Amino acid sequence: MRLLAFGDSFVLGQGDPDHLGWIGRAVRARPEVTLYNLGIRGETSVEVARRWRAEAAPRLRAGESGILFSFGANDCQLEGGAPRVPTAETLLAARQALTEARQLAPILMVGPPPMPDPGVAARLETLNEHLKTLGGRIQAPFIDVFRPLFADGLWNREAEMLDGAHPGAGGYQRMADLVAAHPAWRAFLDGG
Amino acid sequence: MRLLAFGDSFVLGQGDPDHLGWIGRAVRARPEVTLYNLGIRGETSVEVARRWRAEAAPRLRAGESGILFSFGANDCQLEGGAPRVPTAETLLAARQALTEARQLAPILMVGPPPMPDPGVAARLETLNEHLKTLGGRIQAPFIDVFRPLFADGLWNREAEMLDGAHPGAGGYQRMADLVAAHPAWRAFLDGG
Repeated sequence: MRLLAFGDSFVLGQGDPDHLGWIGRAVRARPEVTLYNLGIRGETSVEVARRWRAEAAPRLRAGESGILFSFGANDCQLEGGAPRVPTAETLLAARQALTEARQLAPILMVGPPPMPDPGVAARLETLNEHLKTLGGRIQAPFIDVFRPLFADGLWNREAEMLDGAHPGAGGYQRMADLVAAHPAWRAFLDGG
Repeated sequence: MRLLAFGDSFVLGQGDPDHLGWIGRAVRARPEVTLYNLGIRGETSVEVARRWRAEAAPRLRAGESGILFSFGANDCQLEGGAPRVPTAETLLAARQALTEARQLAPILMVGPPPMPDPGVAARLETLNEHLKTLGGRIQAPFIDVFRPLFADGLWNREAEMLDGAHPGAGGYQRMADLVAAHPAWRAFLDGG
């Protein structure tokens, strides 16, 4: 199975000393999964939506691939007093990416993890709910990690100790465990 | 430092149960290195040369990036009785990619690892020498892993036990150790 994972620095696993991130950890000991980690630092939903098709083309094999998206944190960062991407545009980008990708392969959306900054976290929590609602409306599988990671606390504690945004091995492992235990993840890996 | 690694399934680390490959293992415990692993299964030098620019664009930051290339194994596979890419075309693709990439960031070429098939291995050994010569002529740093990995034997033993081409954790770790110990690797990481 070829797993194409598009998103931001959290998908990439920035700051993980093991260079795995949550997605590398979620497929550990499964060498039959070919992981294409296509996260890019700093990217918003709109930037991901713009490039994913071109990068998917040489990596996809019909019938043996799956396409995953996870973004939102950079959309919620303030730039000149306003979020980098307004909620309506994030939802439009997500909807477009998911509906187009679904024509090529099974899809999965993983919601954004939390962040220590209270303002960003509040916007992210709202965006996470909107993305979950969108997933339900267009019948795209969605895994919510925001609330369990926020409640657990390790993610934000590590992020605060490191660069203020990205956790270390512990936080990424918690997110991997949440994702790997979700029925939508198992259905996605089996269907790809 | 942002490390952009372009190449084939060996760059990707296909078959490594830890989903690290030699390059993930070479930057282990260095969370300050952002690794963009842009290896693609089955790609030849010509295919890598065709796409690397578009995929580098959103990932590069001038002054804090490095571009690595490693390919050759798929060029040497037979297709209808002839190698998929003739040596002259491989060298042209390599020269073009290296000279163009050098204008954007420090570069590094890592030679292809060995393969168990004796015919492919013989062509690969010759190609490896040609690539090394090219590196010297255009003053592009080159790391030769073919001969030490061939002599060591673990790489090919694991590949034979697995899918006939890709090693497991042990072979990838040997290659990582060879690369990480090379002065050209250290210069590349310090310069990127």
